[in-house]
Amino acid sequence: MSGATAQGARTRQSILGAAADLASVEGLAGLSIGRLAAELGMSKSGLFAHFGSKEQLQLATIESARHVYVEEVIRPGLAADRGVRRVSALCSAFLSYVERGVFKGGCFFAAAMAEFDARPGPVRDVIAEMQRRWMGTLEQAVAGAVECGELAAGTDPGQLAFELEAALLSANWYYHLHGDRDFFDRARLAVHARLLSAATPAGRRALL
Amino acid sequence: MSGATAQGARTRQSILGAAADLASVEGLAGLSIGRLAAELGMSKSGLFAHFGSKEQLQLATIESARHVYVEEVIRPGLAADRGVRRVSALCSAFLSYVERGVFKGGCFFAAAMAEFDARPGPVRDVIAEMQRRWMGTLEQAVAGAVECGELAAGTDPGQLAFELEAALLSANWYYHLHGDRDFFDRARLAVHARLLSAATPAGRRALL
Repeated sequence: MSGATAQGARTRQSILGAAADLASVEGLAGLSIGRLAAELGMSKSGLFAHFGSKEQLQLATIESARHVYVEEVIRPGLAADRGVRRVSALCSAFLSYVERGVFKGGCFFAAAMAEFDARPGPVRDVIAEMQRRWMGTLEQAVAGAVECGELAAGTDPGQLAFELEAALLSANWYYHLHGDRDFFDRARLAVHARLLSAATPAGRRALL
Repeated sequence: MSGATAQGARTRQSILGAAADLASVEGLAGLSIGRLAAELGMSKSGLFAHFGSKEQLQLATIESARHVYVEEVIRPGLAADRGVRRVSALCSAFLSYVERGVFKGGCFFAAAMAEFDARPGPVRDVIAEMQRRWMGTLEQAVAGAVECGELAAGTDPGQLAFELEAALLSANWYYHLHGDRDFFDRARLAVHARLLSAATPAGRRALL
């Protein structure tokens, strides 16, 4: 990559980082080129040169947020050993990412999902696909823990992933709504108790 | 109430009903007098006469949605006998209200919470208060079930209410995001299993 191209890529990344922060607070629907230009003190024409349209800016912002999510949640979660510890690590990594305020307004994807769930179109389709992948990651981790004998054989990975994700999402909402960190403890307790209830003796030892 | 006043109140109610539907799809933040006037084919000045400002319109819409929520969720839930059946009935009533599309875009309060959780101000304060009341209703129902010996004595009402609400909220999001009714079954299964896990023998009989 030439120096100029590398600098262009860095500029684009820092624009998209600011866009994702802004969208996590004010919403992705309101993320127009004009609004972002005002936030960054840049010219609208400069941003148009980068993104072309509001929808392209929204899609580029989602893609940039996906990279952050992979680094902050998926990678540390998958670093744990296969089994119930990996399921637990994915949940902990999500809660840590919200608690540390990686995005100013909370989980970028939760906010985007809530905003676009009832608005069909390419933006919703991409968000739905991201959400499916995340649920797929949780489900695979659950299935892995069943295979290695740490969760009971009859465990339904889709159902368990849904229940874990429910606790994680709710902690994200309630923490921001009430400004109360106790909701992270509630979610951690819910995840731990739910995993214990499905664990085999080997799984319970792994969770200690 | 005179005929003219009654008609005025009905007009106001039907405006606010349309406003709540619109907010559940497009968001409460975007609910301006201009946007609502366009949706209803009314004049902006007519709506100004009713509400005065965007914020007053938002607050009146929340109040109107609260009445709907009380009729559709709280009242049928509290109609069940005190005990674990009442906890279960509150959860079922919530899921039914979402599944029947009482508001076009899903639960009005979930959407409003997601939108305003990171935006301090009077609108967020009112939404936070509504959410606290709903959680309080669930907690009281849980505490009642503990008192009448249907849930185990050590049950933490705040924790259990959080876990139940997590499943309900997530069904609301995922149903709208993916257009898949199976998420209601996931939530019903989660609620039932969670209540069973905390139930005494009397509680388990009540849940059958």
